[in-house]
Amino acid sequence: MDKIWDNYKDVKSELDAVISLMEKNVKCKDKKIENSIMELIYSGGKMLRPAFVIIASNFGNYDAQKARSLAAVIEMLHMATLVHDDVIDDAKTRRGQETVQSKYGKDYAVYIGDFLFCVCFKILASSATLQSIKVDSKSMSRICLGEIDQLNSRFDSKLSVKNYLNRISGKTAELFSLSLYTGAAESGCSDALSKQLWKIGHNIGMAFQIIDDTLDYVGNADSIRKPAASDLKQGIFTLPFIYAAKKDKNTFKYYLEKESFSDEDVKNIILLVNKHKGIVSAKELADKYTKKAFKLIDNLPENPYKMILKEVAEKLLVRSY
Amino acid sequence: MDKIWDNYKDVKSELDAVISLMEKNVKCKDKKIENSIMELIYSGGKMLRPAFVIIASNFGNYDAQKARSLAAVIEMLHMATLVHDDVIDDAKTRRGQETVQSKYGKDYAVYIGDFLFCVCFKILASSATLQSIKVDSKSMSRICLGEIDQLNSRFDSKLSVKNYLNRISGKTAELFSLSLYTGAAESGCSDALSKQLWKIGHNIGMAFQIIDDTLDYVGNADSIRKPAASDLKQGIFTLPFIYAAKKDKNTFKYYLEKESFSDEDVKNIILLVNKHKGIVSAKELADKYTKKAFKLIDNLPENPYKMILKEVAEKLLVRSY
Repeated sequence: MDKIWDNYKDVKSELDAVISLMEKNVKCKDKKIENSIMELIYSGGKMLRPAFVIIASNFGNYDAQKARSLAAVIEMLHMATLVHDDVIDDAKTRRGQETVQSKYGKDYAVYIGDFLFCVCFKILASSATLQSIKVDSKSMSRICLGEIDQLNSRFDSKLSVKNYLNRISGKTAELFSLSLYTGAAESGCSDALSKQLWKIGHNIGMAFQIIDDTLDYVGNADSIRKPAASDLKQGIFTLPFIYAAKKDKNTFKYYLEKESFSDEDVKNIILLVNKHKGIVSAKELADKYTKKAFKLIDNLPENPYKMILKEVAEKLLVRSY
Repeated sequence: MDKIWDNYKDVKSELDAVISLMEKNVKCKDKKIENSIMELIYSGGKMLRPAFVIIASNFGNYDAQKARSLAAVIEMLHMATLVHDDVIDDAKTRRGQETVQSKYGKDYAVYIGDFLFCVCFKILASSATLQSIKVDSKSMSRICLGEIDQLNSRFDSKLSVKNYLNRISGKTAELFSLSLYTGAAESGCSDALSKQLWKIGHNIGMAFQIIDDTLDYVGNADSIRKPAASDLKQGIFTLPFIYAAKKDKNTFKYYLEKESFSDEDVKNIILLVNKHKGIVSAKELADKYTKKAFKLIDNLPENPYKMILKEVAEKLLVRSY
């Protein structure tokens, strides 16, 4: 379990229960399948999304069994999208470990992702309401559409901040929003409170993804545990690049006309993005989302979990960068 | 619409409504996505599974809106599995048309399949009961596990009829059973009747897949609209092969030790399978399932749709082979 939860014993013990529940639900005769999913479960992610479900559920009438089920579903939906993303990206490692597709083959990874989707809806049908299933499946459609949009816009020279924000809204913020919303709505919180938590998730998610995208331009393989500049090499232009390209259209034109980048190109682009303050501008926008998130958190009703949410958001969004 | 429905105007008009419903549900801003799914919808399949939902729903209190939604879901789940299967099989064509993965790329096909899954659960949450969603997601898990089992057993020399039957039970029969069961259960048929329809679907599905698998050994690309012997080339050993290999272990040993087959190998194997009456034996087992299906259909309560189901099963299973 990630050390981010060390100070929150109640959240941590619930997350342990969520892990047990996931283990129970992916048990199957085929041990290869079971083991490959178990590896995903133990792969050391932060478990932010299930934690958000637990936290939001505590704003209503906390029903442990229900909250844990919903949390397990959200984490497994997240796992399913990661497995399929790795197929698309041809990724060799994730979180420092070999990916399902690299270890067992792409074919296998496609079906493992599908199997995880099915398990999620099976759990939902046993523990959630029809309304929640509707919200979940709509969210998942938006996530898929976001991923497809990202595919379609690879090496697309028509850059726009708006398109980028739309893309990360689907790709990342959606599942953060869903986590906080579902926890609230299914524990009987009012519509207004559930929607407020949805918005908090959205703003945390947007800030989180923008910050993550700046790491491609400043980080190295050690500190972010993924190959630096991986998005760039795939022709995915993120916010620091977009801001920099706006400031120096002529120089970036050369790169925007290319259909693949050499290591030398990547190095030059990183220098250019820094020179034109692409990272600084991106951080400024991340800050706006962060502030919005904190303002919305401050307006939540008094509850011990309000402080937890605030502290976790601080750890995620105000980390050293 | 396939001519199999020409004599059944009521079923045909409901299937037209199912197509409209699918069109409505896959509408989205991204026209590329919408068009690629529309192509799947119009690609000229028999629409057996949605027709089974419609037929079974008529054994209860027929609610057109509900029956059409469930039928659309089953057809789209089927489409999602086909899209992902084509990714795995690297298939260039299906039903005589270029596959999504061949036309738009594998990456795109993975997400299109995922998007279809999400749309299915969104429709289910609006039109079905939690119980149905549970049954559907369990069925879909079994289908995924069946596909993974098929992947795992490629070029596996430990052949067994039992494993083969398990595999096609998950791969094909499950969705046939689910179609008839869901239609019945959601239109208020008794548990016993719903289960009887499940069994009918199972037996039709088993016979259907066995017959389809014999076509790899007798058919040609024209008559079955898929490259002959495609399964064999991928190391998927179906019933005619398994029966023949049991009769002449020594000769087949040579082929079972290989990890790929040349065109010459495939030609020789087809000759051997015919020589050892693999097709005849497979047809005999298909006949058993067919007879079981007809017996179960005969025991259905009197209803105009009983005769339709029987005639359709005859067309599918007693076709010239």
